[in-house]
Amino acid sequence: MAEPLRVGLAGLGTVGSAVAGMIQQSRDAIAERTGRTIDLVAYAAKDPPRDDTLDLSRLKKVDDPSALARMDGIDVFVELMGGEGNPAKSSVEAALSAGRPVVTANKALLAKHGVALARLAEANATTLSFEAAVAGGIPIVKTLREGLGGSRINRIYGILNGTCNYILTRMHKEELSFAECLKEAQQLGYAEADPTFDIGGFDTAHKIAILTSLAFGTEVDAEAVHVEGIEQISLADLQAADELGYRVKLLGVAQRTEAGIEQRVHPTMVPKGNAIAEVDGVLNAVAVDADTMALMLMGPGAGGAATSSAVVADLMDLAAGHRVPSFGRPAAQLVKAPRAPMQRHEGGYYIRLAAVDRPGTAATIARHMAEANISLESIMQRGRDRQPHGGEDPKSADKPAPVALITYATTEDAVRRALSAIERDGVVAEKPQVIRIEKG
Amino acid sequence: MAEPLRVGLAGLGTVGSAVAGMIQQSRDAIAERTGRTIDLVAYAAKDPPRDDTLDLSRLKKVDDPSALARMDGIDVFVELMGGEGNPAKSSVEAALSAGRPVVTANKALLAKHGVALARLAEANATTLSFEAAVAGGIPIVKTLREGLGGSRINRIYGILNGTCNYILTRMHKEELSFAECLKEAQQLGYAEADPTFDIGGFDTAHKIAILTSLAFGTEVDAEAVHVEGIEQISLADLQAADELGYRVKLLGVAQRTEAGIEQRVHPTMVPKGNAIAEVDGVLNAVAVDADTMALMLMGPGAGGAATSSAVVADLMDLAAGHRVPSFGRPAAQLVKAPRAPMQRHEGGYYIRLAAVDRPGTAATIARHMAEANISLESIMQRGRDRQPHGGEDPKSADKPAPVALITYATTEDAVRRALSAIERDGVVAEKPQVIRIEKG
Repeated sequence: MAEPLRVGLAGLGTVGSAVAGMIQQSRDAIAERTGRTIDLVAYAAKDPPRDDTLDLSRLKKVDDPSALARMDGIDVFVELMGGEGNPAKSSVEAALSAGRPVVTANKALLAKHGVALARLAEANATTLSFEAAVAGGIPIVKTLREGLGGSRINRIYGILNGTCNYILTRMHKEELSFAECLKEAQQLGYAEADPTFDIGGFDTAHKIAILTSLAFGTEVDAEAVHVEGIEQISLADLQAADELGYRVKLLGVAQRTEAGIEQRVHPTMVPKGNAIAEVDGVLNAVAVDADTMALMLMGPGAGGAATSSAVVADLMDLAAGHRVPSFGRPAAQLVKAPRAPMQRHEGGYYIRLAAVDRPGTAATIARHMAEANISLESIMQRGRDRQPHGGEDPKSADKPAPVALITYATTEDAVRRALSAIERDGVVAEKPQVIRIEKG
Repeated sequence: MAEPLRVGLAGLGTVGSAVAGMIQQSRDAIAERTGRTIDLVAYAAKDPPRDDTLDLSRLKKVDDPSALARMDGIDVFVELMGGEGNPAKSSVEAALSAGRPVVTANKALLAKHGVALARLAEANATTLSFEAAVAGGIPIVKTLREGLGGSRINRIYGILNGTCNYILTRMHKEELSFAECLKEAQQLGYAEADPTFDIGGFDTAHKIAILTSLAFGTEVDAEAVHVEGIEQISLADLQAADELGYRVKLLGVAQRTEAGIEQRVHPTMVPKGNAIAEVDGVLNAVAVDADTMALMLMGPGAGGAATSSAVVADLMDLAAGHRVPSFGRPAAQLVKAPRAPMQRHEGGYYIRLAAVDRPGTAATIARHMAEANISLESIMQRGRDRQPHGGEDPKSADKPAPVALITYATTEDAVRRALSAIERDGVVAEKPQVIRIEKG
């Protein structure tokens, strides 16, 4: 049997601890498959390990992650500290500069510095692997890097943040408000004390930026992602969606358009029956539309066990001697794709308006839609603030009447123009709600 | 750039033609990813290519596939003729014996001779790849061989035959009989003139046998698969399933049990809401339950474009120099697992009985169920031959009354004993229908 693959691991939080445990517990299974054992030999961690049953007594402890990354006696550096800045960035750079392969789960680092790091890896004849950075245990990076090379991908989209999907699922199923579900998610440990990064769509944006590069051979361009979170989604939207035949999901979407590559993260109405519409709770799912086929992969997007499985898969590829360029192609061949501006986005839209209750309101709304060349597929009007289980609230007689519209395919620009005109004419009592529709 | 990877291709049917086309059309994209071009240099085909736009003029034509497999000037032999016998078997053996890697989509060959061929490959220091043999374009082989090495898999199951799934979906959605849907599938080219291989479950059995080996590290043992087809499924079963909260799918299932590895193919009731229950039409899907996570992959299980994408992915791995043992572990380490006998299968059951209409029938049925220690979760009785949209058929007053039962978890043995006793007592007018339930 070949020499062991010696691992230096930085970060012993949830994922780092799980990786350390899996390497130790699956030692024989890994050796059977790759012909080599994978040995954890050294680590760096600023806090005690998240899993306090880990036996670290025979490992070398190094205080500085960059020193660990460069240290003699390791064959691969595993970065599980997270964060786009140092020490993650400096330690990954230190390892790559020393010609040492890196495995990381750090989506923020890759979204911001992915291309530079891929170039650094190649310049030093080594590799940067990151299966765990996107969609946790789902092998989407391997599938894009190695499984679809003969295909041309037209669109990739997915549910990439379990926190948001959990909140949207609970709101819909339990008829709860956004605030209630967020609080519950925080209590269950599915959401951080400061949840902005998840619910604001930024985590999804990092992930879709990485997937875009893998799918289209473009340079990672996280700044080009149009980002909207789920904070403004109300139970009323979820219920209207249900009645109109849709589910609401926070999707990351990247697609080829005539204007360039469109990258966007926003709450999305997905037709029921479309597989991704039925992915509930903390699960993630990624769908790929290629010229050869449509694929969907579904599984856990987070959690120690699933994420560590992805890290270990990268380590096993290294142990087996497989080398694949970071983004599936040599970094020098990644192209700078034109960014498709969001105003040119084309698709159907759900629009919810709080129409003021006076004569001419409907005609005004209809006229502005027509002037923007927007055709309506369906209109759902309720007798004002209808209670969830029927009946009309007697106190609401003066309140505006909610109107939900579904448009045929149109452009973002047209929708924004029509809604500005409608607001200007004072026929709506609140800012209109807009949710884009994504067809399967 | 490294030397091209030179391909000899045997078989130019739907998949073979698509592979030849994809190799030619994706030449640059492939070279960009792997650093080498993949060149089709020679072929063998007993019939003209399925795709008559293919330009074969610059390729060498070889009459005997085994001669092609051994011929100088190729680096890899691609077998797309199909069939467990010769010339597929002899030509694959010829290539492997010559130390030449083989890529095949031939599930029948692998189900029958997989272990022997994997041994032959390793003895000659070469590889046997077969992503396209199971679930077409879905990268399940790569996922099992390379993506889940740190996980322990407990169960793998899936919809592995598009023909059966198409028929079951159409029956349910259009309220058609099995015979009508089969005929339609034949007209659309989804089913063969002799459909036995698909609808009898044999194709699914080949595939689950291969997945079993990949998932559990066992020798391929296709003869251990318990096989039942969909021929006996009636529209009444699909409608009863719907009302009871299930969908009926033909699943291939392999799972670890205390008695050994259970491999089975049969119509299965899957709870609605379980992702696999919602996979409709010709699509395939594979679900993996591991200690680390539950994964599901969904996509096209057949068709030239999707299947050729899988063949080309195997070729690209070879071009990149990746070598993975055929079943994820060296063939010598594949174990002979005990076969779990079907009588010991444990799970819930759907049972449909045509109960004769006379006093004491219900009591007799209930008594035999109780004697076999079977508890019932639900009982659905219809007022005899109820018409699909309500109302009772006046001519059916003497006909037996259909009764649908759902049991709690029990054993195959108990169900068979109870049903034998019920039949013996003459309280049912037809052989009972039994469909096993698979929980997500």
